[in-house]
Amino acid sequence: MNIINKRGFASDNNSGVHPNILNAIIDANNGHTIAYGDDPYTAQAVSKFKQIFGNNIDVFFVFIGSAANVLGLKAVTEQYNAIICSDTAHINVDECGAPERFTGCKLLTVSTPDGKLTVDLIKKHMHGFGFQHHAQPKVISISQTTELGTLYQPHEIKVIADYAHENGLLLHMDGARLANAAVALDLDFRKFTNDVGVDILSFGGTKNGMMYGEAVIFFNTEFSKDFMYTRKQSLQLASKMRYIAAQFNAYLSNNQWYETASHSNRMAQILANKVKDISGITITQKVEANGVFAIIPRNVIQTLQNEYFFYVWDEDKSEVRWMTSWDTTEDDIENFTKRLKELI
Amino acid sequence: MNIINKRGFASDNNSGVHPNILNAIIDANNGHTIAYGDDPYTAQAVSKFKQIFGNNIDVFFVFIGSAANVLGLKAVTEQYNAIICSDTAHINVDECGAPERFTGCKLLTVSTPDGKLTVDLIKKHMHGFGFQHHAQPKVISISQTTELGTLYQPHEIKVIADYAHENGLLLHMDGARLANAAVALDLDFRKFTNDVGVDILSFGGTKNGMMYGEAVIFFNTEFSKDFMYTRKQSLQLASKMRYIAAQFNAYLSNNQWYETASHSNRMAQILANKVKDISGITITQKVEANGVFAIIPRNVIQTLQNEYFFYVWDEDKSEVRWMTSWDTTEDDIENFTKRLKELI
Amino acid sequence: MNIINKRGFASDNNSGVHPNILNAIIDANNGHTIAYGDDPYTAQAVSKFKQIFGNNIDVFFVFIGSAANVLGLKAVTEQYNAIICSDTAHINVDECGAPERFTGCKLLTVSTPDGKLTVDLIKKHMHGFGFQHHAQPKVISISQTTELGTLYQPHEIKVIADYAHENGLLLHMDGARLANAAVALDLDFRKFTNDVGVDILSFGGTKNGMMYGEAVIFFNTEFSKDFMYTRKQSLQLASKMRYIAAQFNAYLSNNQWYETASHSNRMAQILANKVKDISGITITQKVEANGVFAIIPRNVIQTLQNEYFFYVWDEDKSEVRWMTSWDTTEDDIENFTKRLKELI
Amino acid sequence: MNIINKRGFASDNNSGVHPNILNAIIDANNGHTIAYGDDPYTAQAVSKFKQIFGNNIDVFFVFIGSAANVLGLKAVTEQYNAIICSDTAHINVDECGAPERFTGCKLLTVSTPDGKLTVDLIKKHMHGFGFQHHAQPKVISISQTTELGTLYQPHEIKVIADYAHENGLLLHMDGARLANAAVALDLDFRKFTNDVGVDILSFGGTKNGMMYGEAVIFFNTEFSKDFMYTRKQSLQLASKMRYIAAQFNAYLSNNQWYETASHSNRMAQILANKVKDISGITITQKVEANGVFAIIPRNVIQTLQNEYFFYVWDEDKSEVRWMTSWDTTEDDIENFTKRLKELI
Repeated sequence: MNIINKRGFASDNNSGVHPNILNAIIDANNGHTIAYGDDPYTAQAVSKFKQIFGNNIDVFFVFIGSAANVLGLKAVTEQYNAIICSDTAHINVDECGAPERFTGCKLLTVSTPDGKLTVDLIKKHMHGFGFQHHAQPKVISISQTTELGTLYQPHEIKVIADYAHENGLLLHMDGARLANAAVALDLDFRKFTNDVGVDILSFGGTKNGMMYGEAVIFFNTEFSKDFMYTRKQSLQLASKMRYIAAQFNAYLSNNQWYETASHSNRMAQILANKVKDISGITITQKVEANGVFAIIPRNVIQTLQNEYFFYVWDEDKSEVRWMTSWDTTEDDIENFTKRLKELI
Repeated sequence: MNIINKRGFASDNNSGVHPNILNAIIDANNGHTIAYGDDPYTAQAVSKFKQIFGNNIDVFFVFIGSAANVLGLKAVTEQYNAIICSDTAHINVDECGAPERFTGCKLLTVSTPDGKLTVDLIKKHMHGFGFQHHAQPKVISISQTTELGTLYQPHEIKVIADYAHENGLLLHMDGARLANAAVALDLDFRKFTNDVGVDILSFGGTKNGMMYGEAVIFFNTEFSKDFMYTRKQSLQLASKMRYIAAQFNAYLSNNQWYETASHSNRMAQILANKVKDISGITITQKVEANGVFAIIPRNVIQTLQNEYFFYVWDEDKSEVRWMTSWDTTEDDIENFTKRLKELI
Repeated sequence: MNIINKRGFASDNNSGVHPNILNAIIDANNGHTIAYGDDPYTAQAVSKFKQIFGNNIDVFFVFIGSAANVLGLKAVTEQYNAIICSDTAHINVDECGAPERFTGCKLLTVSTPDGKLTVDLIKKHMHGFGFQHHAQPKVISISQTTELGTLYQPHEIKVIADYAHENGLLLHMDGARLANAAVALDLDFRKFTNDVGVDILSFGGTKNGMMYGEAVIFFNTEFSKDFMYTRKQSLQLASKMRYIAAQFNAYLSNNQWYETASHSNRMAQILANKVKDISGITITQKVEANGVFAIIPRNVIQTLQNEYFFYVWDEDKSEVRWMTSWDTTEDDIENFTKRLKELI
Repeated sequence: MNIINKRGFASDNNSGVHPNILNAIIDANNGHTIAYGDDPYTAQAVSKFKQIFGNNIDVFFVFIGSAANVLGLKAVTEQYNAIICSDTAHINVDECGAPERFTGCKLLTVSTPDGKLTVDLIKKHMHGFGFQHHAQPKVISISQTTELGTLYQPHEIKVIADYAHENGLLLHMDGARLANAAVALDLDFRKFTNDVGVDILSFGGTKNGMMYGEAVIFFNTEFSKDFMYTRKQSLQLASKMRYIAAQFNAYLSNNQWYETASHSNRMAQILANKVKDISGITITQKVEANGVFAIIPRNVIQTLQNEYFFYVWDEDKSEVRWMTSWDTTEDDIENFTKRLKELI
């Protein structure tokens, strides 16, 4: 098959699989092994997660990031609960209502300037506790990095976590791009997750060079004691689990995740630097990870999209989103910005 | 990692990925491509399915066979419907209640001697139509091959399909092992699916040499017009879809599926022939595909299981299940049966 | 409106409201009172239930018996659980799949000769514990009296309850006709409910002279600590709760429930005695409460139904069900059996 | 029982049952009648609804207003749909997440100054159509009268309905207080419901003098062709349906609904007039039906609540809600406002 794969900035999941990850899959393709996770590859991957986050955790692999989010939330909620999140959260806008359908919960959304929740913003939904007519808030969900390419500092997370816990709520983190955050913060994963009070974490890999497979991590194993049934009933138990586990084994070895994420982040900086001085372009969010948000002239969007994949973020404002990925090259950026300038 | 992979007959998903399939994945790992199925690999895979089943179909890829079953059933049912199936059906015993949870439907089960439904067996559940207190039967679900390793002949399927349609029901087929059936019947897929009245088909690949990925096929596109939302909301939309599609492209090319399935089936025949005359062993089901069911002396089970993976099917009867797979070797069988004889 | 109300034996809910119950409603229609159960009528009704069952219970009123069953089961299950019941159970055949839809659970059914579960019958479903592919059995549900008009003796219940508890399951009782059971057993309610190990009880009233309203009773208040939200979210919280509570206040006062239920039971005995010697009629179940099941000549059914309401129970066997109620008169029975004889 | 029923302005469902409605219940308590709605009382009530709304409708009775809303919405949505409503809508704030849980849909909320949606406000949610990641908007839901005591004019509804239909959406109306709206508008019900494009209507009675029972009305019977199963499975099918139907028969006869609603509305006007000039009190919403919203001095609220039921609407603003009902008397208002003045 001769397929021309157009390059672009649509999403970090338009990229392929990093060769090291692919090699790990190939290596795992070796004879028989027990299905459904009772295999040594899975044991090893779990062990690697414990090295990172400590031993008092439970790790479960699922197929996609939406599943990691939704099942993690499901594990700690009853159907009459509510989940507080930013109105730009992936769980709110990009999962086709899966959180509501799977958990039964109401999503209570907050408008934010930068995709980041704060205690002040959260407070408007913190009422009605004990009032039977009211869906009971139970989880605050934040994304790290956010869907707007911004970043929570550890102390910002801690403030939210403390507030959540003081009020009987839990803190969930959508870490579809957790590696990009770790690189940007220059911190070990745990410094901005369990160390600052995160209770449930979606740990992503697909957007950073894996083929498929994400992890749900519970920092309190009480929450996960029956999770294996929830995963199975929710159609997220892989039979040939070794191929997910093998990817995580590679991802968590030899700084693999760091290498790909730091590359993505660096490419975003380069892209931002190249476009920020183009007249008619305004960068709208801090470029802290691998996303660049910018207002660009409305009349160039369509032509540019025909040549490079990317999404319009806000039609009304003529705001677009450009995501860089582990395989974005400086040439990609050079060509793209050159073309952009031409069009403007 | 030095992992000793014990061989066995536990399940066809304990085997790995066929090299041709793996190569297709490697070949697809080439630059950027649009995520979520709008890519040329997926277009090609869909096209291959249309070559097999005709153009008037819709094909959707999901991660696992349970998802193919559950979402296919979901697409054609309302929550107040009921689904009629064998009590040994995968949807009834091996999906942790996912069919009930996702569809809201009641499963109406039938005991069968051989895993095969018949109109006579189905009839006991065909009442209460129009009676508001009663979950309304809407789908009959059969497995081809069955969970007992047996096979429906095309005319047997047609009789059930006609009966279903005459009564306003639909026919669903769980084809997790459809390739094994095609080989055993020596027929093109469509001769025992849409040609004889199947309405919704789960088309499996993982049990026959793929890594992950199954297909839901609708033979009436009315049923699937909104299925993309159902798949997404049900957490079964792969972002890097090309890697599922690439597998199917290889699977459906160059008789790949035929080669692996015919090997599995042949291994089951060899295994059956080797054990059938061992004193103390009774084969309990016709060996028509890649499963062998047998009653064996209770006292040898544990020791044998320590050396070879396999499942006890019915503890009370001391009945075990041995599944062969695309990578089972004659040596595997020779060693296994030799050891079995020793133990007896 | 001039409405001719045909009399019959279709169901005990074809009867009206007992005058004493209706008077209680009328008395409660007095000015303002807080909605949603924070009213003195509800407090009084709860107190009456505590006099009967002891103080360590939680009582919640819902609109109908199906809701009492379904929400009681929902309170003690997770979506991956299974519920074991007779295949004739109301939850299995007469609630249009509501148990599956609300709880997400699988119903595991057992054929019984008389509507009564036994430990031996239950055992066939007691496997797969800890196996993630399998819906995990969590509740055994029995009906007292059964849907076949039969009765569990207290020691029979205790054996099932003990077995349930030894295996980590709970015992649920559908008591839509609990008063008929109490009368038949000549025992206080608690002697065959919490005293013998029932964990969750649906306590019916509508079939015994109330207008609407049933109670869910939890004998372990751990199970019900969040039930108020489940009830509200399940659309079973009455705003003008006082009118349900007032009915229960009357129902549980002055032997009201006893009077109506003993009348119904007595009428069933009279009916059974009158028909049992009619040639061509075979009574098929013990007449222990207010239902009479009988095989009657197929050719008389339609004509008889035109004149008297009743249901055919089993078309194939020409078996019918006749239910007596609190307002059945000896004349009703006399006329009915006379007509039945004529037709035969 | 000697119960002192404190009077107040908490909710129109703190009032009792109008004597005419109660008498209709008493009259219906006459012998046997078929259960579950196949009775002449129900036929008559349906006929009365058809006199009001025309023959091309379907009417179903349920127990409560929340159920009318939720099941009406359920009937016209798939689980991947979204429902647009005001953030003050009953379905959003007072149903404990039941809309999400029953329908699976996402609620897309809009802030409004007065509880009323407009096309402009709705537009922010009208995107993502055909995009599989996005819950697909399907219904716009408005409340008439609104939860803030305000009123839609018929032409305002028509504009929304037209906009909905042009975009493939439907218009749902929560008419828990529809009678108050009809009185306030001085229009027949249909002039501001089906005549201006409403597709599904919750028709309330409980807040205007009934005991229990609400109606779901479908103005397109395609939407309701299977609704009887949905109602049953959702636990909203009354066995002794005649007692709901009898109430509606009385409610819809002899201007019963008009009499009670016009009284309520008039009482609200009197109350508003009496409080509007009290220093320190600001009425915050137009008083168009039977609710008065006002900011009052924070320090008087608790004492006043001890003597009269009413709710604080917005703690931060010290805003309270006073609802009048069919049985509010001028004396109630006189005493209440007198006490309010004293406290201030």
